[in-house]
Amino acid sequence: MRGAVLHAPGDIRVEHRPDPTIVEPTDAIIRLSATCVCGSDLWPYRGIETVDGPAPMGHEYVGIVEAVGRAVTTIKPGQFVIGSFFASDNTCEICRAGYQSSCLHRELIGAIGTQAELARIPLADGTLVATPDVPPDDLIPSFLAASDVLGTGWFGAVAAEVGPGKTVAVVGDGAVGLLGVLAAQCLGAERIIVMSRHAPRQKLALEFGATDIIEERGDEGAARIKDLTNGLGAHSVIEAVGTRESMMQAVHATRPGGHVGYVGVTHGELPGDQLFFSHTHLHGGPAPVRRFLPELIDLIWNREIDPGKVFDLTLPLDQAAEGYRAMDERRAIKTLLRP
Amino acid sequence: MRGAVLHAPGDIRVEHRPDPTIVEPTDAIIRLSATCVCGSDLWPYRGIETVDGPAPMGHEYVGIVEAVGRAVTTIKPGQFVIGSFFASDNTCEICRAGYQSSCLHRELIGAIGTQAELARIPLADGTLVATPDVPPDDLIPSFLAASDVLGTGWFGAVAAEVGPGKTVAVVGDGAVGLLGVLAAQCLGAERIIVMSRHAPRQKLALEFGATDIIEERGDEGAARIKDLTNGLGAHSVIEAVGTRESMMQAVHATRPGGHVGYVGVTHGELPGDQLFFSHTHLHGGPAPVRRFLPELIDLIWNREIDPGKVFDLTLPLDQAAEGYRAMDERRAIKTLLRP
Repeated sequence: MRGAVLHAPGDIRVEHRPDPTIVEPTDAIIRLSATCVCGSDLWPYRGIETVDGPAPMGHEYVGIVEAVGRAVTTIKPGQFVIGSFFASDNTCEICRAGYQSSCLHRELIGAIGTQAELARIPLADGTLVATPDVPPDDLIPSFLAASDVLGTGWFGAVAAEVGPGKTVAVVGDGAVGLLGVLAAQCLGAERIIVMSRHAPRQKLALEFGATDIIEERGDEGAARIKDLTNGLGAHSVIEAVGTRESMMQAVHATRPGGHVGYVGVTHGELPGDQLFFSHTHLHGGPAPVRRFLPELIDLIWNREIDPGKVFDLTLPLDQAAEGYRAMDERRAIKTLLRP
Repeated sequence: MRGAVLHAPGDIRVEHRPDPTIVEPTDAIIRLSATCVCGSDLWPYRGIETVDGPAPMGHEYVGIVEAVGRAVTTIKPGQFVIGSFFASDNTCEICRAGYQSSCLHRELIGAIGTQAELARIPLADGTLVATPDVPPDDLIPSFLAASDVLGTGWFGAVAAEVGPGKTVAVVGDGAVGLLGVLAAQCLGAERIIVMSRHAPRQKLALEFGATDIIEERGDEGAARIKDLTNGLGAHSVIEAVGTRESMMQAVHATRPGGHVGYVGVTHGELPGDQLFFSHTHLHGGPAPVRRFLPELIDLIWNREIDPGKVFDLTLPLDQAAEGYRAMDERRAIKTLLRP
C-alpha cells in the first residue's frame, strides 16, 4: 500500500509500505476513506520534536472494515467506522470513568500511521464506533473531524464546563479551537469570544457560533476578555495551542472559580504561583475522544453539525507533502487526504 | 495594645502597637480571644519571603466584637465571631460563586496582623460569622482552627472532589494536611492515605480518620499510592505543602480523571507536559474559608468535630517568639497564642 512517511524535518514522502495484517486477535484492518494532517503532525515536521529514522505519519482515520481478528465481536467487515488517536479497551476502570485516552491498555495510533491506504487498529471493539450505515460522501469530512479535532475541541469545552448562560473564551484558532467554538455553541454557551487574527478563521468561528472576535494576545488578550466580562473574566476558557504563553493567557482570561479546558499539548513550564492565585479549575490532556464518539456521530449523521468545514484543502494522498506545506505556511486550516 | 512584629528573619517581638480604630464605616474592632501562628508565617520568618521593615504578623483570629462602624448591620458588639485571612464583601459575583478569597473588594488580613490584643476587620458584615452564643473556653481552639487551617483543609478536600466511596491521599502532614484528613472523613471518603514520617502527626491523622500511613515521598510516594490502588492512583489528592516536588507527587498519585485539590501556596514552576498527560483535574488557591464557615461553626458548636487538636502548644501572646521557634523546629504542629 501507499503511505506518508516523514524522513526528516520538512521531508514527507508517500511511498510503498507493507500492507498491515491482523497481529492480535483484537485487531481490525480498515481501508481508509479519508485521513488528514493534524496540527500536532507539524511539531516533528518542523523539527521541534525529533523522530528517529523514517516515521509513518497520521493518527486520524475513517474507513471501511476489511478484516477483524477472531476475538473481535462487535465490529464487522463492511462497516464504516471511526476511531481516535489512542486505541482503548473501553472496559477498564479508567475507560469506564470516561478517560479512554489513558486506558490501561492504550496503544498510540500515531505509531501505526493512518496517512495511508490501510491501517491496523488495535482493540477494535473498544476503539472503533460504526455509523448507522455507510455514509454519503459529503459527510465523510465531518466524520473524519470527529476522529480527533472535533472530539478534542469537544473535550476542551466539556473540561471547561461550558454550559447554558456561560461566557466562553477560546484561545487558538486552529481546527481544534474552531471546533471548540462549535462544541461551546452545541453545549449552550451564551457568549463565545474567539481570539483570532486570521480572516478566514474568524469567518469560520462566526459560522460555528462565535459572538465576539478579539485580535489581542497574551496579557493584552486576557485584559480584553476581562473588559468584555465586567472585569471578571470568562466562566470557561478553552486552550487549544499548548505554549506557556497561550496557557497563561487562558488562565488569566478566566474568572476566579472558572474553568480552563486545555487540549493543546502543553510545552514548557507553568508558574505555580500564578495558577494558585488564579483560583481557576484546570482540566485537560489528550482528549478521550472515544467518550464522545457516539454522540458526535449522531449529530453528524443527523446533519445537526458540520465540523468538516475545517477542511479547507483536499488533496489526493500522493500530494501529502503539499498538504503539510499548506498547513505549515498557514495557507490551510486543515488538509484532508484521499487515499 | 501588644502585638507580634517581625523585625528580621527569626526576630519576632511582642511590642506596643497603636490600638486599632474604625477607619471605614464597614469595619469592626474585635478583642481577640485567641490567635495563632500559621505555617505560611514561617516563610518570612525563615527569610524565604522578604519583608520590608517591621511587619505586624498573624491572620487567624476569633474574638468578641468591641465596636462596629455605622454601616455594619448584622455584626454586633458582644458577639463572638470568626473570620478568615481575606476580608470579603460576600455580595459580589465572585463571592456569590463561593470564591470569597478572590472577592472584588478583598483585603488581606495579614497586613493588619492579628497576633495582637485587638484587630480591625474590614467589611465586617461580609467577613465575620458569629457563633450562636459566646462559646465555652474549650471550644475556642476549634473555632480558631476554622479561621484558616480547617477551612483550608476543607477547601482542599472539596476542590479534590472528595466524596463517598473515594480513595483520598493527603500530601503534607502540617495542620492543613491533617485537617484535610478530617474534612475527607466528614465528606465520606472510603479510604484516606496520609503521607507522613512524624509519629505525633501520624497519630493525629489516625484520630482524624486516616486509614493508611505511608512514609515514602516524591516519585516513590506516588508509586506507593499507585500500589495501594490497583495501579490506578487515588481518586482525590489534597496537596498541602506547596513545593514543586509535593505538587508533582500529588499529581502523579492521582488517577487519570481524578482530582487534585491544592492549597499549599505553590512555589516554583510546574512541568506543563506532566500536568497535561496526567489527565487530572487541578483546583486550588487561597481557600475561600468564608464559604465553609457557617457549616464548620455548626459542626464545632455541636461537638461533631474537634479540629482544635492541631494546637499542640499553647502560649501567652508575649511568648510568640517561642511559638514561632517551636513550629520552625517542628517541635509543635501549631501554636495557639492567648492575648
